[in-house]
Amino acid sequence: MLKTEKIPEAAITRLSVYSRHLNYLEQSGVTTVSSQDISDGMDGSSAQVRKDLAYFGEFGTRGVGYDVRDLNRNLKKILGLSHSLKVVIVGAGNLGAALSQYKGFLDRGFSILAAFDRDMSKAGGSLNQIPIYPMYKLDEFVRQNQVDIGVVAVPAASAQETVDILVRAGVRGILNFAPKAVTTPNEVELRNVDLSVNMEILSFYLGLKELRAGEAEAQE
Amino acid sequence: MLKTEKIPEAAITRLSVYSRHLNYLEQSGVTTVSSQDISDGMDGSSAQVRKDLAYFGEFGTRGVGYDVRDLNRNLKKILGLSHSLKVVIVGAGNLGAALSQYKGFLDRGFSILAAFDRDMSKAGGSLNQIPIYPMYKLDEFVRQNQVDIGVVAVPAASAQETVDILVRAGVRGILNFAPKAVTTPNEVELRNVDLSVNMEILSFYLGLKELRAGEAEAQE
Repeated sequence: MLKTEKIPEAAITRLSVYSRHLNYLEQSGVTTVSSQDISDGMDGSSAQVRKDLAYFGEFGTRGVGYDVRDLNRNLKKILGLSHSLKVVIVGAGNLGAALSQYKGFLDRGFSILAAFDRDMSKAGGSLNQIPIYPMYKLDEFVRQNQVDIGVVAVPAASAQETVDILVRAGVRGILNFAPKAVTTPNEVELRNVDLSVNMEILSFYLGLKELRAGEAEAQE
Repeated sequence: MLKTEKIPEAAITRLSVYSRHLNYLEQSGVTTVSSQDISDGMDGSSAQVRKDLAYFGEFGTRGVGYDVRDLNRNLKKILGLSHSLKVVIVGAGNLGAALSQYKGFLDRGFSILAAFDRDMSKAGGSLNQIPIYPMYKLDEFVRQNQVDIGVVAVPAASAQETVDILVRAGVRGILNFAPKAVTTPNEVELRNVDLSVNMEILSFYLGLKELRAGEAEAQE
């Protein structure tokens, strides 16, 4: 069994990035790569790549490298991407629309079945070829289609309520983009994605740079 | 000096979440909180809160707790939010539109000055009251307005090119939402935000749950 308790989430994030890079290499006709090739163009080092992969088994051949197709198939399996996951998007505003056509989702085999919106005038329409249904049909649709993942792109005020509907209808995971943390019962996996956190981390590092520049000047 | 080398990025992410929670408490008229109050409704524990805050100094009073306003002012200062940062959004499609009105950004004092798009028919229009200019004006605008941060919401294929323009024009940080990792010179802070990574982390945990359920069954 995988000692998955010990795997840092950052490693999973990197696996996802490696896998996308391997996709690109595969499409470019590359058949064998080194850990250095995998780390090229990313923040990590080749040692990091080897360490991350080692969590999940032995993949490469010493002195030869990794078989691109084989490694990528394994990574996709680890990432739960070997079969397509069924997704609905709740909220057909700008964010929902952006997510519905986000190349990163579509390329990776997530199957977006439908979008839902409280605005009845949007129902019957479509979002980048994904049908939009009225909100009251969400529960029934999720049950009938055995939807795996609900993507929440509604305003903060209705985020938890939306999550509760999805949970009752039986989704296994929730990806919440509303700028408000929500909760789910333990059996439903949850990722709160607050887009502004990234902006604030950036802002933190900008402040740090200023601070250091100031200190360097003071020491001169 | 802050021993910032040692501060894990996850702690900064949490500070950002704490600060938003403190905003909410402040608006609700709460004046004093415990670390338990701060951790309520989030994934962390009160011990985690204390540890995260300890990276940056001593804030609370033992047995009394934290002064909400004071602590939040300190957190905002740490996060570089005590003065407003000037932001432009490049790409006025769905994602750019979603980001331009993302409550998380606006609430936190980021000032979005303008959006830019290659599509000349969008120029002259506006995105949630933010003016849209043609792409060729990006360089000049960033220089004249001393823009701090460029948010990149263009298709993958033009992401690096957009980043290069922003860097040459003098931004201090880049937040890249295009589903393709870009690079910047060392002096320009960069955050690549791949929205699909979150989906894949979710999918990983769903796979893990299946695996464990399978193992539990096999053991029965």
